[in-house]
Amino acid sequence: MDIKQYMRETGERARAASRSMARADSNAKNAALYAIAEALIADKVALIEENARDLSAGRERGLDDALLDRLALNDERIDGMAEGLRQIAALPDPVGEITDLNYRPSGIQVGKMRVPLGVIGIIYESRPNVTADAAALCLKSGNATILRGGSEAAHSNQAIAKCIHQGLEVAGLPADAVQVIETTDRAAVGELITMPAYVDVIVPRGGKGLIERIMGEARVPVIKHLHGVCHVYIDDDADLEKAIQVAYNAKTHRYGVCNAMETLLISESIVEEVLPELAAMYIEKGVELRGCETTCRMVHDARPATEEDWDEEYLAPILSIRVVKDMAEAIEHMHAHSSGHTESIITENITRARQFMTEVDSSSVMVNASTRFADGFEYGLGAEIGISTDKIHARGPVGLEGLTSQKYVVFGDGHIRN
Amino acid sequence: MDIKQYMRETGERARAASRSMARADSNAKNAALYAIAEALIADKVALIEENARDLSAGRERGLDDALLDRLALNDERIDGMAEGLRQIAALPDPVGEITDLNYRPSGIQVGKMRVPLGVIGIIYESRPNVTADAAALCLKSGNATILRGGSEAAHSNQAIAKCIHQGLEVAGLPADAVQVIETTDRAAVGELITMPAYVDVIVPRGGKGLIERIMGEARVPVIKHLHGVCHVYIDDDADLEKAIQVAYNAKTHRYGVCNAMETLLISESIVEEVLPELAAMYIEKGVELRGCETTCRMVHDARPATEEDWDEEYLAPILSIRVVKDMAEAIEHMHAHSSGHTESIITENITRARQFMTEVDSSSVMVNASTRFADGFEYGLGAEIGISTDKIHARGPVGLEGLTSQKYVVFGDGHIRN
Repeated sequence: MDIKQYMRETGERARAASRSMARADSNAKNAALYAIAEALIADKVALIEENARDLSAGRERGLDDALLDRLALNDERIDGMAEGLRQIAALPDPVGEITDLNYRPSGIQVGKMRVPLGVIGIIYESRPNVTADAAALCLKSGNATILRGGSEAAHSNQAIAKCIHQGLEVAGLPADAVQVIETTDRAAVGELITMPAYVDVIVPRGGKGLIERIMGEARVPVIKHLHGVCHVYIDDDADLEKAIQVAYNAKTHRYGVCNAMETLLISESIVEEVLPELAAMYIEKGVELRGCETTCRMVHDARPATEEDWDEEYLAPILSIRVVKDMAEAIEHMHAHSSGHTESIITENITRARQFMTEVDSSSVMVNASTRFADGFEYGLGAEIGISTDKIHARGPVGLEGLTSQKYVVFGDGHIRN
Repeated sequence: MDIKQYMRETGERARAASRSMARADSNAKNAALYAIAEALIADKVALIEENARDLSAGRERGLDDALLDRLALNDERIDGMAEGLRQIAALPDPVGEITDLNYRPSGIQVGKMRVPLGVIGIIYESRPNVTADAAALCLKSGNATILRGGSEAAHSNQAIAKCIHQGLEVAGLPADAVQVIETTDRAAVGELITMPAYVDVIVPRGGKGLIERIMGEARVPVIKHLHGVCHVYIDDDADLEKAIQVAYNAKTHRYGVCNAMETLLISESIVEEVLPELAAMYIEKGVELRGCETTCRMVHDARPATEEDWDEEYLAPILSIRVVKDMAEAIEHMHAHSSGHTESIITENITRARQFMTEVDSSSVMVNASTRFADGFEYGLGAEIGISTDKIHARGPVGLEGLTSQKYVVFGDGHIRN
């Protein structure tokens, strides 16, 4: 197979389907989502069979247990996928909303209409449920999608694609609205991210390596979620109970997630009132502590942090701790080391809270709340395709609105420029 | 000079200044804009002297008259620049606006805050007034700017930069908030567009060649204005008087602008009622007509259009005309040939008007209005840094809001995830 030609044809079909999708009404899109959910449930046996082929191939290739677990489909996970589709069907349709429609002095009426982006390329790794989730979000927002999953999930993804196509057909929508790339050739990714005529935006979902490769090579805009080096800063005027509660939750609620805290910053004026208790809690929970000089002096079990520690996304029960002079030094540390994902301040002082809100340059900035809240569901988006650490287009959790754009609409009555 | 190091240092200074700019209140930013306007007026003699050096160098290099005209500063143009700055000062400050602040079931309060993008790189060609305009828009929206103008305007741009720095100083804002690259080495552009650590977005203002080069090489998001191949479609149910009025205005009001119509599409059912009169008007005005077979049969002076004509941005008194079967064929033509800038339908039929609005995938879609209205001032943005034909981030005329982003703000009271 000529990969270039295959991808070009895939792109042409997606572009054509995107025109139909932009016109599709909410009823048709929701009908498709419900029908896909039904098809997944009805095809459970086949899905689990195809998934078993991927799993045994993975075991032969020596994939580790964590990866095999992410790859596995079972009854419950298929139910979860179907439920996710129904939830997306229940969300309001963002497409077609007209806002800010106002008369101008010239007499024309100008507003903005929310419209699909067009064709969205999704590149992801092992989890097969992304095939259904991502396709559903793109479908609901009126876009066509080209999905490129990991080769280790190839059979599972094709089986899910079959259900998606059934659902689209039931609803009278074009099957090409969701295409799952069949080849596992890596060159297909290279083509997908360099076809601006056919692909409007790329959403990579995966590790740092994947995303950096795509950023380096893409000739199409990328909505990227790089990584989360999130901070909590405990201010001089913190309520110590809240401080301990939030700092403990932000680290220990879940370790392998991007919105977990990786570095705790504590103002020196209150460090003695908060650090010993908090450190004991972390240590009891099995969290390894890596600290600045002051931290190590106060906490016996903490080992010295290296310069690299401040930039590390541990995704593990490890926490770096630094004692700072004041909020200004905390913010300076964040600007130097944060990945721009989520930072939180614990304080009762409204002036510093407002300053922190203004000055910290991250996709989510919080006061007296755990960084773990940085999430599409928690924010009320209903679902998310990822969390963007970019500043352009979509920032923070990206839901249906992030998969749309706005165009200007102008109404006149034969108006001309003078 | 080591260009790489020079650009890196420029970037570091811009990044540092962007932190101050993000904190700067509206009063300080407006004070700077008024002070820059004053400095430009006070320095008129020096500005015109420096501009004369550019002009004479340009004449020696054999630049053509149109280019020399774009390059020239005079009393009136400097007044115009100053007036533009005052108008930007009078616009509302977009930064800091918090919207959609709502309580979530968990008890946290989530909203969005409008924030500057950070550091904006502007790459432009001969017009020195862009130095003041672009710097002012970025300043008002709380961004730091790195400006790289054309080498032919180097002395004028540095003289304007001096006024900008004076104004920033008067207002107590960092001079590094606006930096005009001093070297005319082309390698500086290559550095500027590949420093994602220091530059958040690039706005190129110039011809297709410049923009295509930047698109090919950039490693930083680009807000681009590619070109305008704009269409007017005269529908079966058009009011013929409006049709003639709008189609004439869209082509002849100004030729060298991106929102001028380049192709006129006419439904065959009414072509005989509208084309002869309109063609006579164009011909009388000196517009060269290039048409499809039917057009050429009906209009003696029209010459046959080639396939290339349908994709051409003439920026000149030339118009291509095509007779189509119906709106569907018109929209198909637009999807094949439009640059996604602006398209207008002339019709009294509301169903087709609504369909046209939904299906045409351009940054501005109009009903019964001249494409010439696609403009930041006409749309009420107050000013524009360009017209984006991208779908991502900003689409259509880009004003202050397009130079900002939004971050999520979360307020809690010690809230943690369960």
